[in-house]
Amino acid sequence: MTQAIPSPVSIGVVRETAPGERRVALDPAAVAALVKRGHPVLVERGAGAAASFPDAQYVTFGARLGSRTEVIEQSDVLAVVRAPVASLATQLRSGQTVIGLLDPLNEPETVADLAGRGVTAVAFELLPRTLSRAQSMDALSSQASAAGYRAAVVAASAFGRYLPMMITASGTATPAKVLVIGTGVAGLQAIATARRLGAVVTGYDVREASRREVESLGAIFLTSSVSQTLDAGGYAVELTPDERATQQAELERAIVEFDIVITTAKVPGHKPPVLISAATLGRMRAGSVCVDLGSSARGGNVEGSVPDTSTMTPNGVTVIGAGELATDLPSSASQMYGRNVVAVVASLFPHGILAFDPKDDVHRAIVVTLGGDVLSDAVRAAMKLPPAASAATQKKVPTS
Amino acid sequence: MTQAIPSPVSIGVVRETAPGERRVALDPAAVAALVKRGHPVLVERGAGAAASFPDAQYVTFGARLGSRTEVIEQSDVLAVVRAPVASLATQLRSGQTVIGLLDPLNEPETVADLAGRGVTAVAFELLPRTLSRAQSMDALSSQASAAGYRAAVVAASAFGRYLPMMITASGTATPAKVLVIGTGVAGLQAIATARRLGAVVTGYDVREASRREVESLGAIFLTSSVSQTLDAGGYAVELTPDERATQQAELERAIVEFDIVITTAKVPGHKPPVLISAATLGRMRAGSVCVDLGSSARGGNVEGSVPDTSTMTPNGVTVIGAGELATDLPSSASQMYGRNVVAVVASLFPHGILAFDPKDDVHRAIVVTLGGDVLSDAVRAAMKLPPAASAATQKKVPTS
Repeated sequence: MTQAIPSPVSIGVVRETAPGERRVALDPAAVAALVKRGHPVLVERGAGAAASFPDAQYVTFGARLGSRTEVIEQSDVLAVVRAPVASLATQLRSGQTVIGLLDPLNEPETVADLAGRGVTAVAFELLPRTLSRAQSMDALSSQASAAGYRAAVVAASAFGRYLPMMITASGTATPAKVLVIGTGVAGLQAIATARRLGAVVTGYDVREASRREVESLGAIFLTSSVSQTLDAGGYAVELTPDERATQQAELERAIVEFDIVITTAKVPGHKPPVLISAATLGRMRAGSVCVDLGSSARGGNVEGSVPDTSTMTPNGVTVIGAGELATDLPSSASQMYGRNVVAVVASLFPHGILAFDPKDDVHRAIVVTLGGDVLSDAVRAAMKLPPAASAATQKKVPTS
Repeated sequence: MTQAIPSPVSIGVVRETAPGERRVALDPAAVAALVKRGHPVLVERGAGAAASFPDAQYVTFGARLGSRTEVIEQSDVLAVVRAPVASLATQLRSGQTVIGLLDPLNEPETVADLAGRGVTAVAFELLPRTLSRAQSMDALSSQASAAGYRAAVVAASAFGRYLPMMITASGTATPAKVLVIGTGVAGLQAIATARRLGAVVTGYDVREASRREVESLGAIFLTSSVSQTLDAGGYAVELTPDERATQQAELERAIVEFDIVITTAKVPGHKPPVLISAATLGRMRAGSVCVDLGSSARGGNVEGSVPDTSTMTPNGVTVIGAGELATDLPSSASQMYGRNVVAVVASLFPHGILAFDPKDDVHRAIVVTLGGDVLSDAVRAAMKLPPAASAATQKKVPTS
């Protein structure tokens, strides 16, 4: 007697419904890659429209179209960006998997709901980003890259002057001075793009180690006189309140010299730090622009920034709350995100069916719920649950 | 007995009131230049606010602030951008001068009104642009330069993908393909800016002579197989209907291969030519972007484009009516415009008082009305008046 070989799981993608969200979790190329791996793929009609991927293109690449309900009911695995999952969860059933930016540290109730329903939840936010084999799955990085590029474009749009130096018969314009605070993926991409546009760019980071990356992009590196100690994982150790105040005062003194300031400090699961106070905004020149990539419902890096909104201070400084900028580059952001999803599927479903490996650092980190349990200790802590039985072998969740 | 030396005329600037207009005819640096030439300068309170020039800065540079009425009543010369002059005219009196983009070929009634009131009207549009000594006065060029830069920024903002090639752990993005149609000042600036942003850029012009400029910016030059004859002034001679159809068909075949198309064909005093038909828009890819710098109330270069509005075709092409883009770069555009105004004032008021020289090519071209007469034959023709007595010596008005 031959053993039945289980057929590969089907993968579905639905239209994102968060306000302003234009991305889609799978672009047509990602669909083609999944189909090639043997997965049937179901796409909600219109799922890619806002990212300029017409339904016909999905069909050409091997997907079947359906209604939202059909896709949710008939897919073994649902790929989402932000979805939002809280409302999707009620439609999911035991044995289904959902992969996305599930924000598990801020959404413990959704995690509890998914666990209770027996849904396997896979969250990009918990990926161990320092592992090189995880890079192709790193949706936080791919979306931060899109956001950083976009931040420079948004700043150029909002700024009333040329970014490059211009020498014309009607006079010479000096180049704009741009400061990018935080030189992670988003910051470096913002620096590169502002440089492309001809601005004179400075990159600020408390980590002296960033100097080389910033300077390699043709930008000036600025750091704090307060030396920052790093832990074994490469993350900054908390400063004393005095050190922190000195650092912040230095930064704010520098800020007022710039035309455009882009802030990029996001801390998953925490309120973003305020880097530009209202007092500093009040000392900036009329016409200056601040783009706050840290902006969120819980506040941002610029005091008073409002998510997804451009406001102007009484002294004429434009403040743009831009915490979800990747969605404004929907085609490219979705293309990269789609590749991240394909990489996760390839890792978790190596032969087309779920093969969770508790010894795999990546699996153990990103699989938040499985078989009714919450596996991630970081998420368990956010849910005020005791550590899982396997707590001793769990890795620390990166905080930046 | 000594002769009284007349004191230099006073110069005023009011807030622009055209919808969406953010420029101001004099920036603080232009005020400083005029004050240095001996002119008292009056600035309407808030005139520069939308261009990020606070009142205090004007005062620092030597201006006196006043109400709109005070500025209009007390200024010998009023500098405006678009104003609009039709509504300003009723407040002007004999002996006053108004300098600006007065659009005299399209606004014959305003010209008649100004002439009837004895106002001296000076229009930047009529400047002989090929004279090198007129370059510093060339507001059409300075504003076209701002519009061209801005067109590339607007296109990058509206486009859902990266402009540059991106090589990341989440895949490689190909660079965007940009076509700029018309390689005058605006077109060349759009090419340069799109190139800065990393796009692969093609510049199209019917004039083979543009090839070198386009290629020097690192762009590909595209032209028509229909050879275009130029007249003595360097302007294109009208094609036969057949030649025109062939040229247009070739262009439209090329257009559908591009992600972003920027059109720049404006013809002062005429309806802009349609370069992208609705049928061609319908064949472009979803996600493509057209920026129409020719857009106006009388139509644009893209069929169906709506001035100052972004629309989307049923097949997902974004069409942006962008006929007045310089106003969205208000600080830089005003700085350049201010220098153009200062250059005109220096030429027409060499010792601080009006010294119109009928033998000066520049004076004769830009001074539309003087002492109750309409001087410009081009404007007289638009007003259906016979040529002025000096018609034989008048120059042809440039048409592009």
